[in-house]
Parts: sequence; C-alpha cells; structure tokens
Amino acid sequence: MSEAKLTKTALTPPTHTAPPARFSHGVRKGNILQVAGQVGFLPAADGRAPTPAGPTLREQTLQTFANVKAILEEGGASWEDVMMMRVYLTDTAHFAELNDLYNEYFADLKEAPSARTTVYVGLPAGLLIEIDALAVLG
Amino acid sequence: MSEAKLTKTALTPPTHTAPPARFSHGVRKGNILQVAGQVGFLPAADGRAPTPAGPTLREQTLQTFANVKAILEEGGASWEDVMMMRVYLTDTAHFAELNDLYNEYFADLKEAPSARTTVYVGLPAGLLIEIDALAVLG
Amino acid sequence: MSEAKLTKTALTPPTHTAPPARFSHGVRKGNILQVAGQVGFLPAADGRAPTPAGPTLREQTLQTFANVKAILEEGGASWEDVMMMRVYLTDTAHFAELNDLYNEYFADLKEAPSARTTVYVGLPAGLLIEIDALAVLG
Repeated sequence: MSEAKLTKTALTPPTHTAPPARFSHGVRKGNILQVAGQVGFLPAADGRAPTPAGPTLREQTLQTFANVKAILEEGGASWEDVMMMRVYLTDTAHFAELNDLYNEYFADLKEAPSARTTVYVGLPAGLLIEIDALAVLG
Repeated sequence: MSEAKLTKTALTPPTHTAPPARFSHGVRKGNILQVAGQVGFLPAADGRAPTPAGPTLREQTLQTFANVKAILEEGGASWEDVMMMRVYLTDTAHFAELNDLYNEYFADLKEAPSARTTVYVGLPAGLLIEIDALAVLG
Repeated sequence: MSEAKLTKTALTPPTHTAPPARFSHGVRKGNILQVAGQVGFLPAADGRAPTPAGPTLREQTLQTFANVKAILEEGGASWEDVMMMRVYLTDTAHFAELNDLYNEYFADLKEAPSARTTVYVGLPAGLLIEIDALAVLG
C-alpha cells in the first residue's frame, strides 16, 4: 500500500439526484468502491418526485441494475469489478424471476460473476427490490 | 501491498462490554476496519443489563452513532473514513426522521459522506435501529 | 498496491453445485475474499435437489458454517481471515442458541473473531439461517 493519503470521492452520476440525506450514492477510496442501496427509480428529472420505472419486478430490477451501473462507471469501474451484490427483495416468490433477470442481464460478463446474498425485507411502499454493490478495482 | 503479515485486531472500546459471543465489536486488518452491528445501548455499566438509551428513534439513533464512533476511534479511524453504513430500521415510517438525524449528526463531515443502505427488518424487542459500518483508512 | 492487474477468481468448492444464477459462491481479488450468502444445504449430490441438513437451527447453522468454510478454503483463506459475518435469522427467539453455536464452533480461533451483524429477515421456506462473510487475507 502506498503511503500517499487516499482520497474518498463521492460518486454522483448525472442520472441521480443529490442524495436525500448526508450519504453518497457511491464512494471510492483507493481501489475500493461501494455503491449505496439502489432502487428502481427512473433517472432524475427536474420537478418530478422519485418515480419507479414501473410496478413489476422486471422493470424495477432492470432500472436498479442501470442505477448501480451508473455509479460504478462514475467511479471508473464496471460490473466486472464487482465482488458482492446484496439483493433485497420483499417476496420469496420473486426469487426465480430475479435469477432469470440476473442471467439475462449478466450473460456477457467476462470475469467471474460477483458473490451475492439475497434476503427478504421490508422496503418503502411500491418498491420490490433494492441492490447495493462492493467493487474492488485494479 | 506489503508482504508483511497483516494483523487482525479486535476493537473493544471502554464503553462496550465484552461481546456476548465469539465475535468482535469491530476489527481492523491493514487499512480495512469493520464495525459490527451496533444498537442504541448505553455505555456498559457493571451489573446493569444492556439498556437502550431510550424508547425513541432519536435517542437510539444518536446512541448508535456514538457506539459506532467509539469503535472507529478505537481502531484509529473516524467518520471521515467510513465507506458504507448499513442502517436497519424496523418501520418504514421512520425513514424521514432517520434522514433528519443523519443530516444533523453528519452536518460537519469534511470528506464525502459514506454510502448507505437502509432496509426494514426485525430486531430484538424494544430496538428500533441497528447500524454497521465499513471503513477504509489511509 | 502493486500496479499488476488483479484477477477476480470464482470460488466453487467441490461440495457446492454450480450457482443457480450468474453469481459466484465466492470471489477473491487481491487480498479481498467475499463469500456469498450460504444456507444449510448438504453437500451437492447428483440428482438431489438442494436439501437442508435438517429442520433445526443447530443442524442448519453447523452446515452453513461448513459451507462458508469450504469457500474460504477454496480461496486460500480460513476463519482467521474473516473480518465480517452477516447472520440472517428468521426469528429473534433463535439469538441465544445462535450465540451458543457460535461460541462452540469458534472456541479455538486464534486471531480476533470477526465482527458480526445479526438481523431478522424472511428466507425461503424451511431455511432458518443464512450467513455471508468478508475476509481480508495476508
């Protein structure tokens, strides 16, 4: 490890609003990049409240993937660098469809897919999925 | 990365009791520091069972922040080094107040605020919030 | 940190089936090793669907520990390297027994025990516990 002081950088892609509190959508420090919990909100638009991409698991999951990806890229990373994804669902009946979406979306990964934990929790009304991610670059 | 063997150090601040099982309140190895899930228990006192700071979200959240901070400092870190905080609430109705407390408590952060994931889970009776944290020093 | 490109390696121990979707049971990149959420499934056997070690918390927890350990070892790590374990239970009434199992299983750890967060979530029917782990080697 270099002795040089590492800088922690907030990652705020143009698709995202300013966070609603004193946290960052993502941060990078050295070769560690952490993406905050993302949900299926459409890209931010002036004057519109945060709006899910749709009511279905498919719509929300694909939008959530896009939101995670935007933060990874803002930090100079890609899906290939992701070590862990935490997937929070609200209904165990969604597991099979989540896996189908996962296989479809990540079909072209070149490196080892990330590890994953999927658990079932409560989320704000209307949201079916939340995902965060830890990446190691380099 | 140096070839020298890294040491993993348990972090047990004087405000904390010995953990109730074979885990550590926090550990540091190299420049990675992980804080275990903290709740709003008051500083340990001889002969007193673990006692929440109070019944309200405010009381428990501020005490939980203090408990996380004590472990960070025991490991030579501060809030500025935190990359990720995982916030576990029990009620979606607490989200707005959590954000208010967050903004108040972290108003003076100099570096980028950490990422955050907030989900709604079950906690032991009487507890409204639990928080853990990952920090990268240097 | 060396400038050499780090490789991300999928960890698939012989006790495990291929993952049911595009994720890895574990990955290692540099000195970071992430174990995906493990449950108490018995070692994979041809033609048998994933089968929990038994209906009790004890049976499932000990099998889950074995499954995490297999992945750590596949990546050249051991329990001594683990920084954080996330324990997902389904019932707050299981906490005391979890701690007993923890103390029994980890009695001989030489280094500082890992940090831990325990929360109560939903899991697929029949499963009482899920655990994932982050390790830092070296």
